[in-house]
Amino acid sequence: MTDHQKFFSQAAGFMRESAIRQMGAVLAGARDMVSFAPGYPAEDVFPWQAFGEIAQGLLGGSDGSVLQYGPTRGYPPLRDAVVELMRGRSITSRPERVVVTTGSQQGLDLVARVLLDPGDVALLELPSYTGAISAFRNVGASLVGIRQEKDGVDLDHLDDTVARLRREQRRVKFLYLVPNFQNPSGLLIGLGKRRQVLEWADRKDVLIVEDDPYGDLYFPDVSTPEETRPVAADDVTDRVIYLSSFSKTLAPGWRVGWISAPAAIAAKLELAKQAEDLCSGGFDQRVVYEAWKRGVLAGHLPALRAHYQRKRDAMSHALERTLAGQVTWEPPRGGFFLWVRLNDGLDADQLLPIARARGVIYVVGNAFFVDGSGRQYMRLSFSAPPPDRIEEGVARLAAAVVEYAATAVRHS
Amino acid sequence: MTDHQKFFSQAAGFMRESAIRQMGAVLAGARDMVSFAPGYPAEDVFPWQAFGEIAQGLLGGSDGSVLQYGPTRGYPPLRDAVVELMRGRSITSRPERVVVTTGSQQGLDLVARVLLDPGDVALLELPSYTGAISAFRNVGASLVGIRQEKDGVDLDHLDDTVARLRREQRRVKFLYLVPNFQNPSGLLIGLGKRRQVLEWADRKDVLIVEDDPYGDLYFPDVSTPEETRPVAADDVTDRVIYLSSFSKTLAPGWRVGWISAPAAIAAKLELAKQAEDLCSGGFDQRVVYEAWKRGVLAGHLPALRAHYQRKRDAMSHALERTLAGQVTWEPPRGGFFLWVRLNDGLDADQLLPIARARGVIYVVGNAFFVDGSGRQYMRLSFSAPPPDRIEEGVARLAAAVVEYAATAVRHS
Repeated sequence: MTDHQKFFSQAAGFMRESAIRQMGAVLAGARDMVSFAPGYPAEDVFPWQAFGEIAQGLLGGSDGSVLQYGPTRGYPPLRDAVVELMRGRSITSRPERVVVTTGSQQGLDLVARVLLDPGDVALLELPSYTGAISAFRNVGASLVGIRQEKDGVDLDHLDDTVARLRREQRRVKFLYLVPNFQNPSGLLIGLGKRRQVLEWADRKDVLIVEDDPYGDLYFPDVSTPEETRPVAADDVTDRVIYLSSFSKTLAPGWRVGWISAPAAIAAKLELAKQAEDLCSGGFDQRVVYEAWKRGVLAGHLPALRAHYQRKRDAMSHALERTLAGQVTWEPPRGGFFLWVRLNDGLDADQLLPIARARGVIYVVGNAFFVDGSGRQYMRLSFSAPPPDRIEEGVARLAAAVVEYAATAVRHS
Repeated sequence: MTDHQKFFSQAAGFMRESAIRQMGAVLAGARDMVSFAPGYPAEDVFPWQAFGEIAQGLLGGSDGSVLQYGPTRGYPPLRDAVVELMRGRSITSRPERVVVTTGSQQGLDLVARVLLDPGDVALLELPSYTGAISAFRNVGASLVGIRQEKDGVDLDHLDDTVARLRREQRRVKFLYLVPNFQNPSGLLIGLGKRRQVLEWADRKDVLIVEDDPYGDLYFPDVSTPEETRPVAADDVTDRVIYLSSFSKTLAPGWRVGWISAPAAIAAKLELAKQAEDLCSGGFDQRVVYEAWKRGVLAGHLPALRAHYQRKRDAMSHALERTLAGQVTWEPPRGGFFLWVRLNDGLDADQLLPIARARGVIYVVGNAFFVDGSGRQYMRLSFSAPPPDRIEEGVARLAAAVVEYAATAVRHS
């Protein structure tokens, strides 16, 4: 039989299973598991009826192009719509800067392929989104972590890190940021800090890759849309690559995201996408476009914000009732995630099998830290389960913490 | 302003616009253009009504997972269906060997990323599919061409080439083949030649990447399904990676293809896909699955074969009437393409602007040759236009050839 190992590329050697996807597999095989693991949007609030009506219109057969191959950059009316949509976020873009992607994950992958050679440096927050970590690692880049403060990136650490890397002759390509309700920390970067980061990038001539899937999902009780103003909105030197998605606001099954990038970079992203999947799904893009055009998306957002805000409350209150003192967290001001720190040196990796045996799963914090740290953190997604299941899951988690704390070997 | 050039990866430097996609862009901007360029399936014969019924059932909202994130390897019932479908093609596979891809193009890209390091050799037929060329080139591989004979790959040339490459210490990873009605040449590799190629690969310890989007579309007047038996059907040493797609038999807008690979390779392909797009579209995969399960696909194939056979005839007869003597071609026995050689040293690259001015486009042969040759060839796709437009397009092409031949600088 053939020995397959010797045929693999070096990149195949870098590839690791995502901790989030791994938990997705656990979930698929389990009964009565409460999942706080993958950040799935709530299926029960997808606008099903509107999607059904839109699909019926599209599949009448009068427009054959609906199911044909389409332009690599995306369905042109959708690209126009995306420009409009970004205008609502104070970003000035143009269709020639836009590339529609097969979910935002493809956007991250295309950015990696177009910008990163093996050994090039991508700067990521500590913690940062695992999907970005995977995409950047798969092209052999060096991932260097930057500490977060309360209001976002620690600028002193950023400065020192880049100075050190440049002394070592390393090529620093970009800083990757999720400024709005970050996955996993839920952090909303302050407006002042956003301006400082952009000025820093200009001064140091580093690109910014801004990933913004959650900006529309601010919680009205504690946030305003003004606070989610993207870094790209103030980018006058054309150095921000902005990514976003319809996966959290409409549905991930459509696999429609986008990148807005400097025109020269967008042209390369298009070439990379040609070879990667020719084009994103034509039907999917039209469904998303119609949902935007008919006002389904805009009409849907207030209810979504309220929905996820309620679930954040359910989780936050349940944690207060059952785990106060043993864990700490900052209630997020938007998005899908509650980022929980275990006190007393407890380790989320060690807790996981105990929690799983009790019927609740989460993603271990360690998966989000490119420097190997973070074992005291758990990412709890409150987005998918209904409030009663959130309470049940937190109760199971609390029981697991008690069981674990009784036996744990503490870290300092 | 930011200088973007200095941020690009080396891979971004390799990337080229696909000649096929380029013609797609020309087409999108043109009026009354007859396109023999992109190999688009005929939209008017998509099973629209069945798709509409399936969509309505799926979007009722009773199964939320339809629009949720799904497993990276694909919707499990679809993976089972694909195993069944391959069984019908005499291939023994298993679900754990299958990865559903966002069109077959993603399959090629994933194979490239998992198997090819910069400088590694991929062997391709002369000519070969441009999408494969792009995917392999984008990871920095060396693409080495193997001549075609009447019944497929020239084994002597293959042998000599690999011997030379190995003397040069080059790592030869795989031979890429499209055995059934190849894009672009239409060639059907003979059954004897298929066995010989597989034996050769075993002897030389080289993998085979077999791309089979057209096997179901044999033309019953001159071919039998037995003649399309994939190389993978006789692979006893587990060295064939088999790719196929629903794009030509159902519709490309669904973006559903698949890879069946040795289990160790499939595991790496899954990791690569995780970072590339997390998962293919959940709705799309279910539509394709339902179309298979309800017998829409199987019921549809005889009509499709007859449809494309008629169009091949329309093009072949039109060429005989208008261009006999000036061009030569072998009528294809299946698929979408008629591969035309210009006689008298005429050059398809030089002909193209004249043809375009007269309202007909095609893809220049040169785009399909990794050794830079092929300027005497044109790929004419007969799949999309109706027969009367095929005749009109060939008439325009004939006029363009006359105009060009009157002025052309001949190549030897």
